[in-house]
Amino acid sequence: MITRTLAAFVVATMISVSSYSQTATAFAEDFKPSSLNQPGQEYPQVNSQGYARFRINAPKADSVRVSLGLGGRGGTILTKGADGFWTGTTAGPMDEGFHYYNVTIDGGKFNDPGAKNYYGSVRWESGIEIPAHDQEFYTLKDVPHGHVQQVLFPSKSTGTPRRAFVYTPPGYEKDKSKKYPVLYLQHGWGEDETAWSNQGHANLIMDNLIAEGKTKPFIIVMTYGMTNEVKFGKIREFKIDPFQTVLTDELIPYVDANFRTMANRDNRAMAGLSMGGMETKMITLNKPEVFGYYGLLSGGVYAPEDLNGKAKPKLVFISCGSKERPDGVKKSATDLKGAGYNAVSYVSENTAHEFLTWRRSLHEMAPLLFK
Amino acid sequence: MITRTLAAFVVATMISVSSYSQTATAFAEDFKPSSLNQPGQEYPQVNSQGYARFRINAPKADSVRVSLGLGGRGGTILTKGADGFWTGTTAGPMDEGFHYYNVTIDGGKFNDPGAKNYYGSVRWESGIEIPAHDQEFYTLKDVPHGHVQQVLFPSKSTGTPRRAFVYTPPGYEKDKSKKYPVLYLQHGWGEDETAWSNQGHANLIMDNLIAEGKTKPFIIVMTYGMTNEVKFGKIREFKIDPFQTVLTDELIPYVDANFRTMANRDNRAMAGLSMGGMETKMITLNKPEVFGYYGLLSGGVYAPEDLNGKAKPKLVFISCGSKERPDGVKKSATDLKGAGYNAVSYVSENTAHEFLTWRRSLHEMAPLLFK
Repeated sequence: MITRTLAAFVVATMISVSSYSQTATAFAEDFKPSSLNQPGQEYPQVNSQGYARFRINAPKADSVRVSLGLGGRGGTILTKGADGFWTGTTAGPMDEGFHYYNVTIDGGKFNDPGAKNYYGSVRWESGIEIPAHDQEFYTLKDVPHGHVQQVLFPSKSTGTPRRAFVYTPPGYEKDKSKKYPVLYLQHGWGEDETAWSNQGHANLIMDNLIAEGKTKPFIIVMTYGMTNEVKFGKIREFKIDPFQTVLTDELIPYVDANFRTMANRDNRAMAGLSMGGMETKMITLNKPEVFGYYGLLSGGVYAPEDLNGKAKPKLVFISCGSKERPDGVKKSATDLKGAGYNAVSYVSENTAHEFLTWRRSLHEMAPLLFK
Repeated sequence: MITRTLAAFVVATMISVSSYSQTATAFAEDFKPSSLNQPGQEYPQVNSQGYARFRINAPKADSVRVSLGLGGRGGTILTKGADGFWTGTTAGPMDEGFHYYNVTIDGGKFNDPGAKNYYGSVRWESGIEIPAHDQEFYTLKDVPHGHVQQVLFPSKSTGTPRRAFVYTPPGYEKDKSKKYPVLYLQHGWGEDETAWSNQGHANLIMDNLIAEGKTKPFIIVMTYGMTNEVKFGKIREFKIDPFQTVLTDELIPYVDANFRTMANRDNRAMAGLSMGGMETKMITLNKPEVFGYYGLLSGGVYAPEDLNGKAKPKLVFISCGSKERPDGVKKSATDLKGAGYNAVSYVSENTAHEFLTWRRSLHEMAPLLFK
């Protein structure tokens, strides 16, 4: 029952995958290469209003279309110039932040050779970044930086070593006696363990918060949530057990054995975005003795009844974008507070079910953890 | 003078970028998905003889061509089926190991949506793996695994934090008093700091060697060699100074401050593949007091005169594929030995200027370091 309701919510929020701020008829000719372009690539470009312009070389193609734009499924149709390059500009400004996209060339789906790739939609997709007015919080700055470690941990339940990425905060290597709390942070459907550091900038968000003294330093662990074993339309059929076993019986013991962690419930958090929120809810309710802090980022809500009779969480953090279902998120936090729980809601302004919502959510959530 | 000769050698070896074992008229119909495919993708495929088969969806395209195959520049021409998919098989078996490739759709260069991407040729390219008969040495096994850490180190000379990957051997986290030697390991032209762990499997090669007790555990540091600032045809115009400053004045001090290193010449090696070998030669000759072990992998040779009057290296390791210039490599080691240096040459059988040569070279070189 919990699963069904939550899955329905997650699917509903995921449908509004990408939104656009408004329609406009003229745009400023101040386009610059996207910050996510491959080295030396001039296109795609973004202007000061959030319009994106694409340019693809395919001299003998009959049609080239980019999946981003105001035209819904149609995206942006490119037109061919005399030089064989296809160009086009979105019909309006796009939401600030990160967007996945792809390019359809004569009916086949490819990536934009100008852009770097990010794993989403169960494929490596092109990525573009519309500079956000508040991008400072995830900008690479001249501050002390933590490390992101790729680890391969043993997993008897799946029969193969599995990959995780572990963020250790600045200074982790120097004070060899200090121990840290740990956040287990999950990606969404179609993504994998690379998402939170590649498109999420989780490490930079933490580095900047720590440099400003705004959060306690902690470790973040990111692994594949086995989300993509179900089709997008069948998320409600997802069974949590295989991933729960990997996470709680294999990964957590590995992290506690190989990193200087504070290995107890009050110093262990779990959070996830979208379907990773659904996983977070399932696992925290199944294993309330393991995690003390819960976070659902565009990934459903808790009702007070869900938590009844279980070990009380130290904090429940619930967020989404303003273009998703902010009323449900706010109501959940209000209901939880009314029932005596420490609950916080956060709504990311002018964003939808996309990564800027989740970058901001992590930025808001981190200072509240492990207090 | 040194630079010119070396650059000419590197360019010469780089021209034979990819070779093929033989031509054949019939092939075994036992094709399986390449191990480097994106999750769930059936194509590209490889058969037991090393033929590759491609399948690309582009129903309205007029021509689809894959850059790999026996046809030299022509690669493999795909033909369109009734279902709109273009398929084709290489005209012969390919060399064992890793190959970069791309797909030309109606005159534009894209990646194969079925394959994962690897940075080479100054772009993220598709990758395919022809299983090697000796692939065990870089296979992911159920042995203790080291970590690969992404670090962002400060760099005054370039004005921005820079990325490096640091391999720490299994057990690094547990014995907090143990210190390790360090190998600085460089990629080739067109590649970057991701190459040695992504396509090179440097971490798995080390994990397996260490599990078998065949090498002393050591740290490997991989950063971008600033190689792609010059065009491919102008490598002889390359100036080493900017990278030498980053490496010796910024990265090495960062690594020595943040990892448990044995911070002296006798416990510090530098090696590189192709243009990374050229950089290794330049930097070891400019800074003989910094590195005690030198490795050039398909990246030129040392003559005894090069080393005259400088601090003597503990070891010079020189290698290439048998389809490159093995005679030059062997002669260099013989000449160096004749002049009283500890030099070892290695020739990778049946490989060209590609990553299997370099995986094998690392596998041969690692046990010789820091003895």
